[in-house]
Amino acid sequence: MAYEKRMKELREKVAEKGFEAILMGNEKNIYYFTGFPWEAKLLVPVDGDSVLLVHPINYEAAKNFAKNVVVKLVKTGEKIERKIFDMILEKALKNVGFDRMDAAEYQRMKDFLKEVKIKSLEDIIWSLRKVKDEDELALIKRAAELTSRGMKRALETIKPGIKEWEVAAEAEYEMRRFGSSGVAFDTIVCSGPETAYPHGALGEREIRDGDFVVVDIGARYRGYCADMTRTVIVGGGTRIQKHILETLREAQGMAIKYIRDGVMAKEVDNIARRFIVENGYGEYFIHNLGHGVGLDVHEPPTLGPLSKDVLLAGNVVTVEPGIYIPGLGGARVEDTVLINGEEGAIKLTETNN
Amino acid sequence: MAYEKRMKELREKVAEKGFEAILMGNEKNIYYFTGFPWEAKLLVPVDGDSVLLVHPINYEAAKNFAKNVVVKLVKTGEKIERKIFDMILEKALKNVGFDRMDAAEYQRMKDFLKEVKIKSLEDIIWSLRKVKDEDELALIKRAAELTSRGMKRALETIKPGIKEWEVAAEAEYEMRRFGSSGVAFDTIVCSGPETAYPHGALGEREIRDGDFVVVDIGARYRGYCADMTRTVIVGGGTRIQKHILETLREAQGMAIKYIRDGVMAKEVDNIARRFIVENGYGEYFIHNLGHGVGLDVHEPPTLGPLSKDVLLAGNVVTVEPGIYIPGLGGARVEDTVLINGEEGAIKLTETNN
Repeated sequence: MAYEKRMKELREKVAEKGFEAILMGNEKNIYYFTGFPWEAKLLVPVDGDSVLLVHPINYEAAKNFAKNVVVKLVKTGEKIERKIFDMILEKALKNVGFDRMDAAEYQRMKDFLKEVKIKSLEDIIWSLRKVKDEDELALIKRAAELTSRGMKRALETIKPGIKEWEVAAEAEYEMRRFGSSGVAFDTIVCSGPETAYPHGALGEREIRDGDFVVVDIGARYRGYCADMTRTVIVGGGTRIQKHILETLREAQGMAIKYIRDGVMAKEVDNIARRFIVENGYGEYFIHNLGHGVGLDVHEPPTLGPLSKDVLLAGNVVTVEPGIYIPGLGGARVEDTVLINGEEGAIKLTETNN
Repeated sequence: MAYEKRMKELREKVAEKGFEAILMGNEKNIYYFTGFPWEAKLLVPVDGDSVLLVHPINYEAAKNFAKNVVVKLVKTGEKIERKIFDMILEKALKNVGFDRMDAAEYQRMKDFLKEVKIKSLEDIIWSLRKVKDEDELALIKRAAELTSRGMKRALETIKPGIKEWEVAAEAEYEMRRFGSSGVAFDTIVCSGPETAYPHGALGEREIRDGDFVVVDIGARYRGYCADMTRTVIVGGGTRIQKHILETLREAQGMAIKYIRDGVMAKEVDNIARRFIVENGYGEYFIHNLGHGVGLDVHEPPTLGPLSKDVLLAGNVVTVEPGIYIPGLGGARVEDTVLINGEEGAIKLTETNN
């Protein structure tokens, strides 16, 4: 993995902002820069060794998994936070960025390090994380393949009389037995009127003839996510149900076709949204068109009407228009796509449905 | 569910602390008090209506699922944070608690509401959440039954030549097809030398004769978790492997027997830890003995050497001694137990292993 390159770019960006170090506590960020996937704190100075601080429970694993860092053991009874403050004082750092911090921790840091300027530099990390490198793309592609396989199985399973959770069980099992490390998020299998809720409901309903069934799943592979939704109609379906699905598929297709390196994310949202409005469902498309996917299943960039993001080659995003009519039900069609310099957007998830 | 009772107790405790309202952003807390399980903000004043603020994506679901609150829609383009600040100003609140907050959000709140005292009252919420009511216990017991079932299946599956993830797939499938809503945490199936890492490794290794295999799984049922670990030796096992397992089982049994309403959590840890030390493995028991289990899989109280918690009837906790020897491997035995007024600790997870 390209840990060394990532760390080098991070240091350059931190220095450009006028900071001398960045402190990280978010597990996904620490994994991205070091390969160590559990709880820790990571202090990356612009000059000198990066230090990963871990409790005894993770010390041996950190020595094995963490790359390009000095691993420091924080013994039981010692405070990890205090160790970091002392390191900052020892190095006489005056400007320290951080990724994300709890209010209470922030307050303690401000109180202890009165002379030090501290500020979130999370944007710097996202500017790196949202452009995927080759190592990351290989893992995301594998997660997407596993997801497509799980979706195929879910759709084969759906029939009147089966419970929502039984469909979820089959989809997850299929992804898992072909090598998925787990799910990227809580699987949604939702049927009938409750499909009007984009996040689904309890997952315990029995599927019936005439239902919309929304299946929203994602495999995780070595930390990396994929995200995919299909909606089917059980039995024939009404004219309006069919029209909703056709509208969503066409809206998604138009948006994906429009995506290319350099385009404004809000314009992509607008392509799909305008088509849905023109078809009379504008008030029922109640969320953004999509989001970035990587170590987090929801991450920058955002494809939405208020987004300021510009889409770049190497971004991996979802395109997922939905229509949700209270009382009647709802539907969503979603794929994970890679933005490629020459070819625009390439679908990583795929079924024949 | 006992939402009304929980909300009433919360208000009393907030008032006792001299605060006029509490603001929540943590999804688990909001679910505990209202039954609504997705992203939202919840403002609970000591007097007057509680208000749940949601974005359009969750509005219909909130109206359906959220109990004892007024649901307020925050339209696209409106800031949920700003709406809350305005409500606090309108009601002229002077002391507002919160559950947990990001440093940046805290700073904005301090800047906007200069005259308002804001402070984390998370402890109040934990004092409620860590004593489970009857409704919660029914759900945790169901999660524990499903977990025991998954464990039984995992242990049947383990044999030389099978991959770690294949064992995980079978355990998760078993829990899921009997009604689990998903996993409580990332399943650990870890074998061979990497069992020296308490959190496991990649989950991709092929299991071999003579291995320790650690299986740490938990089902989730309607939001509630269970947590259970078993370690087996593939084939005969060495004298030291057998001694490690016997030591852990005995240490766990002694700790569980000692647990009762009113006992100090650190004393329970000490019972198990002392026995492990006496058997020569003291330096290899590198984590706490256990933790609370509920909507979060790791929550108060903590069973550890530095814990200040007193165990109370209605607490649900894990008891999970472990021994991890670098290079050789490790083992852990874990059950989820309920602390009951009369009977001490009752195991909720169980197998015949």
